[in-house]
Amino acid sequence: MKLQDKKVAILASDGFEASELFEPLNALKNQGAEVHIISNKEGDIKSWENGNWGKTIAVDQLIKDTDETDYHALVLPGGVINPDVLRIDEDALQFIRNFFKSHKPVAAICHAPWLLISAGVIGDREVTSYKSIKDDILNAGATWMDKEVVVDNGLVTSRNPNDLPAFIAKIIEEIREGKHEKQVVDA
Amino acid sequence: MKLQDKKVAILASDGFEASELFEPLNALKNQGAEVHIISNKEGDIKSWENGNWGKTIAVDQLIKDTDETDYHALVLPGGVINPDVLRIDEDALQFIRNFFKSHKPVAAICHAPWLLISAGVIGDREVTSYKSIKDDILNAGATWMDKEVVVDNGLVTSRNPNDLPAFIAKIIEEIREGKHEKQVVDA
Repeated sequence: MKLQDKKVAILASDGFEASELFEPLNALKNQGAEVHIISNKEGDIKSWENGNWGKTIAVDQLIKDTDETDYHALVLPGGVINPDVLRIDEDALQFIRNFFKSHKPVAAICHAPWLLISAGVIGDREVTSYKSIKDDILNAGATWMDKEVVVDNGLVTSRNPNDLPAFIAKIIEEIREGKHEKQVVDA
Repeated sequence: MKLQDKKVAILASDGFEASELFEPLNALKNQGAEVHIISNKEGDIKSWENGNWGKTIAVDQLIKDTDETDYHALVLPGGVINPDVLRIDEDALQFIRNFFKSHKPVAAICHAPWLLISAGVIGDREVTSYKSIKDDILNAGATWMDKEVVVDNGLVTSRNPNDLPAFIAKIIEEIREGKHEKQVVDA
């Protein structure tokens, strides 16, 4: 197993794209990582699946009770509604920023890079995203690439659920590498 | 009636916030306007209402069969999913741009200003929007104001369904005024 003794936070709220949370969750656990679901709400959060509300998952901890220093990496699933909710939660944005301040791997897929925009961490970085938010990514100062996965010094991004195998492989690789000196918040 | 002989297009797709389409539609009709629902899909489109799929409305015409020159003004309802779908439809973006090229009133509420970003029409304009997309609006070069309605030379924007009375009153006023010379696409 490649991720023994590693702890990973998955930050999500209602409306996360089901596969984009469950597939990384299972893959990271299979590699021996301890993975926690962190959210802005207690209890269960609802996925988005095939154009409708889908299965739920139990939240392990509220963002406000969670310390970035307890984790080695952060994963941000997409879905349209989920990041739209979290990007107006200052605790969520600060939690994300702290991973960049600590140079730790962060992975975001689909619409999740909206969170990176609002956290102020992707000016001058190379990323991809779901195609609908390309304009927002470019306007934030980042370089947008149409690739299944883009890795830039600990920042891993992908476009959509079809990219999950490449996305997950690179997350595991970046967590194994550990801290990345050039993974920082915007100047 | 204030809008006799006026034709207004409402551009929407699945996931439009119900009140943000139906309330302007009814108010404009009550003032004598002819109002058409224009969409990227045929048949009915589904609203978003109280956190779930809601009532539907029949589409009058596909975007690709619709000519901006037939209309005096354009209304863009919000909802998170609806503009996220339309902003990757080049016909939709060109349709929106044409209203700006013709200096005609355009009204956008909630998440609909994402469409204005992707159409390239709000650099250097004064607008408001749902709070979650404020960062995207600012990064597009616009000035964002926390007001129930912002009117800038034929461009009418509001934040959320609570602002609908002010939004609708200003739409009617701008349509009555007609063309606005400073309503243009970005240079």
